[in-house]
Amino acid sequence: MNETSASRLREQLDLMFKPRSIAFVGASNDRRKWGEWMVYRPLNTGFRGQLYPVNPREKTILGLPAFAAIGDIPDTIDLAVITVPAEYVPDVMEQCVRKGVRAAIVITAGMGEKGPEGLELQNRVRDIARDGGIRFIGPNCMGIWSAASHLSLAFAEAPRNGSIAFLSQSGTFGGYLYSIARDKGYGLSAFVSMGNQADLNAADLMEYFADDPDTKVIALYLEGVQEGHRFFEVARRIVKRKPIVAYKAGRTSAGSRATQSHTGSLAGADAVFDAMCRQAGIIRPLEAVHTFDMAEALTKQPLPRGKRVGIVAGGGGQCVVTADFCAYLGLDVPELDAITQDRIAAELVPHAPIPRNPVDLGGGMKSIMSLANIVNIVAGLDYIDGVITSPPMAFGGTEMVKEALDAAEIITRISARTGKPVIASGRMADSGSAVVQVMRRARIPFYDTPEECARAMYALMAYGETRLALGDE
Amino acid sequence: MNETSASRLREQLDLMFKPRSIAFVGASNDRRKWGEWMVYRPLNTGFRGQLYPVNPREKTILGLPAFAAIGDIPDTIDLAVITVPAEYVPDVMEQCVRKGVRAAIVITAGMGEKGPEGLELQNRVRDIARDGGIRFIGPNCMGIWSAASHLSLAFAEAPRNGSIAFLSQSGTFGGYLYSIARDKGYGLSAFVSMGNQADLNAADLMEYFADDPDTKVIALYLEGVQEGHRFFEVARRIVKRKPIVAYKAGRTSAGSRATQSHTGSLAGADAVFDAMCRQAGIIRPLEAVHTFDMAEALTKQPLPRGKRVGIVAGGGGQCVVTADFCAYLGLDVPELDAITQDRIAAELVPHAPIPRNPVDLGGGMKSIMSLANIVNIVAGLDYIDGVITSPPMAFGGTEMVKEALDAAEIITRISARTGKPVIASGRMADSGSAVVQVMRRARIPFYDTPEECARAMYALMAYGETRLALGDE
Repeated sequence: MNETSASRLREQLDLMFKPRSIAFVGASNDRRKWGEWMVYRPLNTGFRGQLYPVNPREKTILGLPAFAAIGDIPDTIDLAVITVPAEYVPDVMEQCVRKGVRAAIVITAGMGEKGPEGLELQNRVRDIARDGGIRFIGPNCMGIWSAASHLSLAFAEAPRNGSIAFLSQSGTFGGYLYSIARDKGYGLSAFVSMGNQADLNAADLMEYFADDPDTKVIALYLEGVQEGHRFFEVARRIVKRKPIVAYKAGRTSAGSRATQSHTGSLAGADAVFDAMCRQAGIIRPLEAVHTFDMAEALTKQPLPRGKRVGIVAGGGGQCVVTADFCAYLGLDVPELDAITQDRIAAELVPHAPIPRNPVDLGGGMKSIMSLANIVNIVAGLDYIDGVITSPPMAFGGTEMVKEALDAAEIITRISARTGKPVIASGRMADSGSAVVQVMRRARIPFYDTPEECARAMYALMAYGETRLALGDE
Repeated sequence: MNETSASRLREQLDLMFKPRSIAFVGASNDRRKWGEWMVYRPLNTGFRGQLYPVNPREKTILGLPAFAAIGDIPDTIDLAVITVPAEYVPDVMEQCVRKGVRAAIVITAGMGEKGPEGLELQNRVRDIARDGGIRFIGPNCMGIWSAASHLSLAFAEAPRNGSIAFLSQSGTFGGYLYSIARDKGYGLSAFVSMGNQADLNAADLMEYFADDPDTKVIALYLEGVQEGHRFFEVARRIVKRKPIVAYKAGRTSAGSRATQSHTGSLAGADAVFDAMCRQAGIIRPLEAVHTFDMAEALTKQPLPRGKRVGIVAGGGGQCVVTADFCAYLGLDVPELDAITQDRIAAELVPHAPIPRNPVDLGGGMKSIMSLANIVNIVAGLDYIDGVITSPPMAFGGTEMVKEALDAAEIITRISARTGKPVIASGRMADSGSAVVQVMRRARIPFYDTPEECARAMYALMAYGETRLALGDE
């Protein structure tokens, strides 16, 4: 893509994700219809632009004045959302061209995913849009969500605000996944249900979010890849600046059969996709929800310059499982040198286990502050690239709580000072505790399980390694 | 173990898990001490037996009259909980023998895990107990929890009531794991922090819970195995009646180093442990928390007689990922025959994707009830051994909610009628919905992610296969 077309794409996608005015062609008052959902969401989620429902048979839609046709709207339209039945979409797209619209979302299903007839219809729509200078998402998609403009045009409830741009080839499951991400405390900068990708595809959208200042990580749910060569070429360029975490279904033949009937994707040999990901520096998680566990750490912590993990945790089992899973994922958990062992032992009660790495604090520390001191010592070692720890805990009165908060404060400053990532293990259910809040506000990612911690650290270290290998842009 | 010693073990462990009276030697009023926690918990969690704190320097402990020595208590003592410093434990154990106590929990640390001196102390305690007819848990443990007697003698907050007996070689991490299990809605029949296993070890406790009518699954967190030969011999006998799910840390050398300094366990070659588990029919999860995901399904659903999964879910992505992960775990997702495809198609809207398995309902069903009809059809096939589905959903008014509840009711009866397990995918955050409640009350396990569903079905199918191979007892 040359500079001109790149800047044109950016401009058109800005109209999509930060529109000042939206027309809803196929708007409806029927709660069971997409034409209703699409208007209902932006009306109720703080979007400040203009909303123009289009419906020739209604005077108002959800209280807003309705227009008979998009051409009747006395305003420029940045974005058209199309929910009319499939056979009317070409005509609506033509009307959009005449109106001067430059960005559209086609929710309508029953097109490319529905046999040759549907595909022909879809190609007609694509040609009309292309000739008329419109870029569009869909058809057969479930909308978008954009943090920057408080814009919800998605079926599922809104995610949290954050800095992960999530592009999904499945609408329902994409919404389901970001609901789980929301439960886990992770936030998005944008969500796109990509649908059939008749015009805009994953590569186009990645280009846009690579330049988006609110996006730190691009996360993908894929069932197949369009324009495979371009996808990986674009990805390789982007990972020099931003990490891409791409889950792809269809590892197995049972999964491939399912992707075919779902999105018509021919998965191809999974091993090939895997190799291409490694070459492009894309991180590929094993399970779909891992995408977000990994992306969360990548949005919040600095990149390590190696794969050597220090583990400082308040319990033997936690230490064992964390160390085990880090090693299982290919990270190093180097044994601490004798001098460091002594420095750490000075923070522990007499007869505590020897702090070899993992450093097990279960034997007892001299004070709550010792945890912060030990994390400081470990993060300062030249043979440690990142630290996994647990939050300081206070079981006693207000004095102990104050000390725990002080210790948490110190831990939050370590990654800025050393340039090494610090992540923590602690149940989401405890996220109400003041200590955990202090650490989360300071962008320390929290994970329920030691394995999630290890996986997040793996993502940081894998991407850190990629960046070192590719060189910064 | 012969019949006499087996029934003696059962009797003594009944005193431990269903005591009528407990003495706390080392009881304290100091909130920071184990001697306080151990009394505080049963006082506040509905235990109905007698509590006798023992402390020579206090008149009362948490409002209960304190005794100077265990011998002074004017009652028979079923269970002694010992929290005195290590050097006093042998003397206290002798006093317990004289008092006629037959079951004890030794919380005290600083024994076998602390070098040769500590080990010698621990051996003395073990010999005193053995000669005096006392069986004990610990030392260096974090107590027990028992649903049957509403008894909490554990550091962590109580789990939910359920039918998983959870035996953990790590106290803190064991408590942490069951807190996560509680957050996920899973319940335990008992929890045991096994500590150093100087007397009672995992094999003994498994024997007991194999006979416990409230326990349906035995779950283990292990770092190493004592008396390896006996452990696997006992396990092999138990899995003819009850499933055992055993997580074991120390897969890697980093993990093994950590287990050594934590519980002194020499992990040994992990591949050997793995092979022994397969031979004994023990299910071994990759991640610690998977233990509970798997155990949950095993406590609630019938055992399948094969490895062929039917998937009926309300969304293409969900279908794809479930099918993919089932196949990844070695389960079959057979394509449906033409007649069945037609029968299912009759429940779907025209032009919905062909229901091949997975059956994607995202294209639209004729009615909410169609979901129940389709699950019924799939579960009835002789080449399907278990079904993964999603809850019926109602977006509309009370009529739709009523229909969804009716559909849920029908789904809950399928496993009893066909003898095949049915499990469901749905966010814990939605567990308040009436439909999910109906299904959960009817013992259909719910999981957040498709991969968790697949893993749970894998556990059912792996154990079903083991039971077929070993034959019923």
